[in-house]
This record gives sequence, C-alpha cells and structure tokens, in this order.
Amino acid sequence: MNVEPQSLVALIGEFADLPGIGQKTARRLAYHILSRRKDDVERFANNLINAVTKVHHCPNCFAFTDVEVCETCRNRSGAKSICVVEKSSDIIPFERSGVHKGLYFVLGGVISPLDGVGPEQLHLPLLVKRIQEEGIEELVLALGSSPEADSTALMIDRMLQNTNVKRSRLARGIPMGSELEFVDEVTMLRAFEGRVSL
Amino acid sequence: MNVEPQSLVALIGEFADLPGIGQKTARRLAYHILSRRKDDVERFANNLINAVTKVHHCPNCFAFTDVEVCETCRNRSGAKSICVVEKSSDIIPFERSGVHKGLYFVLGGVISPLDGVGPEQLHLPLLVKRIQEEGIEELVLALGSSPEADSTALMIDRMLQNTNVKRSRLARGIPMGSELEFVDEVTMLRAFEGRVSL
Repeated sequence: MNVEPQSLVALIGEFADLPGIGQKTARRLAYHILSRRKDDVERFANNLINAVTKVHHCPNCFAFTDVEVCETCRNRSGAKSICVVEKSSDIIPFERSGVHKGLYFVLGGVISPLDGVGPEQLHLPLLVKRIQEEGIEELVLALGSSPEADSTALMIDRMLQNTNVKRSRLARGIPMGSELEFVDEVTMLRAFEGRVSL
Repeated sequence: MNVEPQSLVALIGEFADLPGIGQKTARRLAYHILSRRKDDVERFANNLINAVTKVHHCPNCFAFTDVEVCETCRNRSGAKSICVVEKSSDIIPFERSGVHKGLYFVLGGVISPLDGVGPEQLHLPLLVKRIQEEGIEELVLALGSSPEADSTALMIDRMLQNTNVKRSRLARGIPMGSELEFVDEVTMLRAFEGRVSL
C-alpha cells in the first residue's frame, strides 16, 4: 500500500525531475519541505515563479537579466573589449576574478550540426553587428574545449578576419593547484604545445 | 560585479537552503529552472504550496496524510497489531516489503532530554490510549538504534508491562548483501549476541 499522501508524492516527483537529484534525495527534500514553516515554503514557490517570469535574456548580450538591458551592458557601455561565452553562467568566473572589465556576449551554445545547432541559432549576426556598431577593438573567445567549441571559435575568427578586431582565446594548460601526475593527456598536450619561454 | 539578476540569486538561495545542497548545486538547479517551460515551473510551485497546505498529521497515528484520517488507519481499522516508528517516512520500508499488515503509530521523535524532548512531546499517552481502546494485542517497536531510541523503547515497554500486549523490537544483525569484512563493530556485537541456534 502506498502510505504517502498524493500531494507529497507529487512534490517528491518535482524534486526527482531536477538534474542530479535521485529518488532518495527527492524524498528527503520533500519531507524537509513538510517540516518548514508555511510562509517559508510560499516564499520558495514565489521565488520559483519570479525567476521564470522576470528573468529573460538581455537584448544586447543575451545574458540572463531581470531588468530591460542587463547591468553589464548598461554600466560598461562604451567598453572596447568583448568576451564571448557559451552560456550565461559562464560569465560568473570572469566577474569573480575581476579579470575582464569589458562587455560580454552569450552565444547560447556552440555550432553542432548533429544537434541541429547552426550559426543562425547562435546570434552570430548580432555579435558581428554589435562589434561593428560599438567599435569593439578586442574579442576574447571563451568557449570551452570541445571540438564543437573549437569549430565555433574558428568560424567567429573567420567572420572577423577582414576587420581590425584583435582576437584571442583563453589559454589552455595546467590549472592552479593540480597535481601533475593526475593531469589528463589532452590537458598535458595543450600545456606542452603552449609552453611559454622564460 | 554581481552579474546575476536578483530573482535568480533569490532562487539559488532557496535551493542552497535545502539540506545537502551546496552553493554550486543550488546554482545549477536554479539555471536549470530557467531553462524549463513556465507552466512546468508553476506546477512545481503549486506542488510546494499544496504539500505544506494539504499534508498534515493523521489524528490517530500521526503519519503524514492529506485526507482527514490516513489510509492505513481507515483500511486497517480493527487490526490488532501496531508498529511504532519515529517518523512518518519510517513507514515506507514496512509497506514496501509488505511485512506488516497492521497499524502504525508515529512517535514524532525519541526521548532526548538534552534536546528538550520528553515523553509529553511524543504522543505517548495517545499511544497507550489507542492500545487500550482498540484492543491492540501486539506492539512492534521500530525505533532505530541510538541510545535515545533504546531508552524510549524501554519506557514504552514499562508503560505497557501491566497489560497483555505482546511487545517486541526489530531484530538487529547483519543486513542483506553486506560483506562481513566491512561490518562495523556495533552491528557485529549485536549480531553475535543475537545469534540464532540452528
């Protein structure tokens, strides 16, 4: 006999639908919710609704924002460098380290013919238009390290080859704090190929 | 600069407040929510509200239910055996294995003077009342294996010593499928003490 009330089963199902949450964790989270104060859970529910209602893509850079034009685009308008990332959350480590003071542009993916993602799905024309209109002088590609990311980077590079825009991509090599003996083959290959003279 | 919109930060906070969910997982879950269809997220929010609004404790056995009296209490009224557990979710393994066909009673905890939990917080008088009124003949204690659980079991046993109720607790020993070499000391001690003649 199923002894769990229907509304509890439904809530367990919601948690189990989240990525990386199994049935056991989902049940634990749902029982935890039952132990919370009602207004606490109402705030959780409101924040869920708020997030999907208010958050949208910035029309200039396609980063997530809940205002008309995102804060970065507003505060840094006039900046001459732009960093191109795959998805909105990729901006976080740049801002956390404070390494990039310029604009961002979220491609929304990388070109992947097998998944049906072509240049037109990626706002590429808008990137070029923005570079021209705002007189961008430097473009930093930060697209991950898959073959699809590499070919997307190559395509962006070609689209801009008749312009004066300085183009670069992030360095690849050994990350901070990693033990050399555990570094994987591809990382080691790239770190060796990209070795820097002293 | 914080590049994440306020409503996204709020949602990350909600997920991070759940037990066992760290900041990184919370961020991943919140971004996942943004990728969902709006009505999908509205259903999630409704299920949260529903769970805390509709689910309450059964007035007879204190298990979670969303109807007046829980299904077990209604369907098995007249049963003569009762299984006493600490919390509502402890009922699940009994029903999954189908080993117990009788009633349940959820204590709501175990006696723990240091945490301020005494017999009066645990519905103990209601358990005794129910046993008397419904003519319960057998009581199975299934209270976990902490010292607090042991002393709670002892107290329940004493409360019923002048009655004819048959009292037992779950057997302790080696669980199914476990490798003997990894069995912990306490489990081994209890399995040895409780050895059964062939």
